[in-house]
Amino acid sequence: MIQKTSSSLIDTLRDRRQRLANLIDFPAILWSGTSSPRNFPANVFPFRASSHFLYFAGLPLPNAAICLTAGKLELFMDDPQPSSALWHGEMPHREKIAQMIGADAAKPIAELELYTQGAATIAVQDATTWTQQSQLLNRWVLPQQTPQGIDLDLAKAIISLRLVHDEGALIELRKAATVTAKAHMAGMAATIRAHIEAEIRAAMEQVIIANNMTTSYSSIVTVHGEVLHNDQYHHSLQPGDLLLADVGAETEMGWAADVTRTWPVTGKFSSTQRDIYDVVLAAHDACIAKIHPGVEYQDLHLLACTVIAEGLVDLGIFQGNPEDLVEMDAHTLFFPHGIGHLLGLDVHDMEDLGDLAGYEEERTRSDRFGLGYLRLNRPLRSGMLVTIEPGFYQVPAILNDSNLRLRYQNVVNWERLSQFADVRGIRIEDDVFVTQEGSEVLTAALPTKASAIEHLVSG
Amino acid sequence: MIQKTSSSLIDTLRDRRQRLANLIDFPAILWSGTSSPRNFPANVFPFRASSHFLYFAGLPLPNAAICLTAGKLELFMDDPQPSSALWHGEMPHREKIAQMIGADAAKPIAELELYTQGAATIAVQDATTWTQQSQLLNRWVLPQQTPQGIDLDLAKAIISLRLVHDEGALIELRKAATVTAKAHMAGMAATIRAHIEAEIRAAMEQVIIANNMTTSYSSIVTVHGEVLHNDQYHHSLQPGDLLLADVGAETEMGWAADVTRTWPVTGKFSSTQRDIYDVVLAAHDACIAKIHPGVEYQDLHLLACTVIAEGLVDLGIFQGNPEDLVEMDAHTLFFPHGIGHLLGLDVHDMEDLGDLAGYEEERTRSDRFGLGYLRLNRPLRSGMLVTIEPGFYQVPAILNDSNLRLRYQNVVNWERLSQFADVRGIRIEDDVFVTQEGSEVLTAALPTKASAIEHLVSG
Repeated sequence: MIQKTSSSLIDTLRDRRQRLANLIDFPAILWSGTSSPRNFPANVFPFRASSHFLYFAGLPLPNAAICLTAGKLELFMDDPQPSSALWHGEMPHREKIAQMIGADAAKPIAELELYTQGAATIAVQDATTWTQQSQLLNRWVLPQQTPQGIDLDLAKAIISLRLVHDEGALIELRKAATVTAKAHMAGMAATIRAHIEAEIRAAMEQVIIANNMTTSYSSIVTVHGEVLHNDQYHHSLQPGDLLLADVGAETEMGWAADVTRTWPVTGKFSSTQRDIYDVVLAAHDACIAKIHPGVEYQDLHLLACTVIAEGLVDLGIFQGNPEDLVEMDAHTLFFPHGIGHLLGLDVHDMEDLGDLAGYEEERTRSDRFGLGYLRLNRPLRSGMLVTIEPGFYQVPAILNDSNLRLRYQNVVNWERLSQFADVRGIRIEDDVFVTQEGSEVLTAALPTKASAIEHLVSG
Repeated sequence: MIQKTSSSLIDTLRDRRQRLANLIDFPAILWSGTSSPRNFPANVFPFRASSHFLYFAGLPLPNAAICLTAGKLELFMDDPQPSSALWHGEMPHREKIAQMIGADAAKPIAELELYTQGAATIAVQDATTWTQQSQLLNRWVLPQQTPQGIDLDLAKAIISLRLVHDEGALIELRKAATVTAKAHMAGMAATIRAHIEAEIRAAMEQVIIANNMTTSYSSIVTVHGEVLHNDQYHHSLQPGDLLLADVGAETEMGWAADVTRTWPVTGKFSSTQRDIYDVVLAAHDACIAKIHPGVEYQDLHLLACTVIAEGLVDLGIFQGNPEDLVEMDAHTLFFPHGIGHLLGLDVHDMEDLGDLAGYEEERTRSDRFGLGYLRLNRPLRSGMLVTIEPGFYQVPAILNDSNLRLRYQNVVNWERLSQFADVRGIRIEDDVFVTQEGSEVLTAALPTKASAIEHLVSG
């Protein structure tokens, strides 16, 4: 787990805690968490440290905590039991780890209780840890509850730091993006010889595992792209199917990528698939072209909706004026979700804090269908990383809904739509870093153009 | 998750609950559990249903429970929310699933509280579920605590069933063993071109993922086989290294395999590596040859110890009589763990119940070093599945222990041992089914002989 760290990590961490100290005047204790059991206590899921801990401690240390006070970092963790060397090998001791991350002090976990007075925290996801947090701080610290009081102040301070990625973060995010692009290319290259979805998933995750990374979320690799959160991989690949792959890598230090491509399993889009693909790509490209500090992310979403509506008017699926169609939410028939979200240590960055990170203060979720699913509603700032992921889906639960069919009876040409039955779901998703000049697509190594995709699949 | 079931599954499940009804005269409620969160609530680890639930319900249904009463099966789960069709597609409804598993009735989860009177249960691992279990049954149901009262009676009854695998289980266990053997062969074939451990792990897990299975535990794929529970994969492969891979597949219905092979990264064992490898293989083969109903598993362990001691005497590493060496636990210097464990729905089958499954009633763990780690101490019965996994390790924490060096100063030729420095860790592990005639190695498709291993690595 821990190989080496560099002076640049130490500098990065020092800078982060100094900037935190400029925002809060109380101590913060951040726990790393513990492994969650799978089917019995000794068989655990791979350990994933809390993202807030990782941001300030740099290393995925299990069963540890850090106390941040006025720019100082104190590490709390127990040294390995002597007997653990038999099973786990010689592990670095507390003092050594403290050196690696530039901590000012290192203490046994039992001493943490001397530091809880007036300290704020953020709930960790696993029940063992949030129970410990609650006991030690003598108040409920619950992962499903919006933080209150100084915990809320801490959350807002951390959000303001984590919203804008520093150079140390960017190095990791680039690594995740690079490996993710390679994984998608491997998936495309494996498709012609594959018989079921699982084989393509395997080819993609192999690249991630071989690079000593993990997936940052459960992969979606499916010929049923219209099921937005599909976690099944058993379907056979049939000529004419599109394969939608939403797969991202996460580095050892926890930084994530999140990329989707959609490709024809035969290596050749049908003309109808190509038409819709190009509509989705036009929305993708239009959003990325517009990204710039100061631009409202919600406006990118609405731009994507408009470009999709326009494209569908051109194809004769919609009739009417694109702006009017978006105004009446007609695009949500085919593009029901949001244009994207924050990306960082979490694939939906800081979503453990609900909408505190995604939504600018005073803003709340829309009650419009579609817009209500938008996970990010802030003006863009240089240093933010966001996904741009427009899509087109024929979701039976939407298109067969009699209320919706009635509401949009005059704007949809259902007969024309039926000619596009071989397009169940298409999504194109990239990770875009907001720069002072505009944007940089971290996943640009992976083509988006239909012809380039066909070439990668056909080999 | 759920594709199809067959009448044979329904028959298997009916038979299991009828046999349970012959053992207990109170209702049993078994929960399946829920997904555990990773870094935020919406990003969960892959769902793994409780093994006891899987045994009687057959399918990995999240957030479900079954009530077993006198051979009757009642299924409790909620139908999917209408809105879930958008995100998760059309999922089978309760009534449909009840048909698939041959349930006698299907009810919303809220009705479960009407069935709790006098019902026994077994704690599920995730905190959300054991909290629900505790609330509904109005007593603490804790995964880390030995069950009491009727819960203990239920546990013992289920153990007596799960100890002996039926035909339905065996079909799944064979599938897991077959895919695991292929994964190991893929790992061997990928070794010559690999630079780090992670690349070999990736080649192995690719096979498992491509077959729409998961790993049944965190893979060990390491050139540091002397670290028994090594979960690191970043080491580079150096000429002269041995690669130890302990990797097993788990079928969609939850049945596990658990296999270890050790191979030279160059494709050629050194003579010292080959010598030790053959000692470990001799222990492996001797144990399997002796497996037969009625044989005490602990005697297999002691047989392995004796064969290893004998081999090390022949190599000049030990001096003395093998039986005496085992009597004085000298073999634990190099083989500190047990010869294996039960295998089934859990890789350490039913270890969620502590030693209730592994240890015959009235037996407890030995306080001898080495023997105390033995996970199974019962007479073998036809239908049991066990692992046989002898090893040889040079663990610094053991071999540099001054007390141990003193205790065994007269039986170890340390100078001779130093000639075997290129053997850090070797283990050979297979999954062996106890039959009336003796045994069947489910993983026999994967060679064990050094020359065959060399051939698979060299290609």
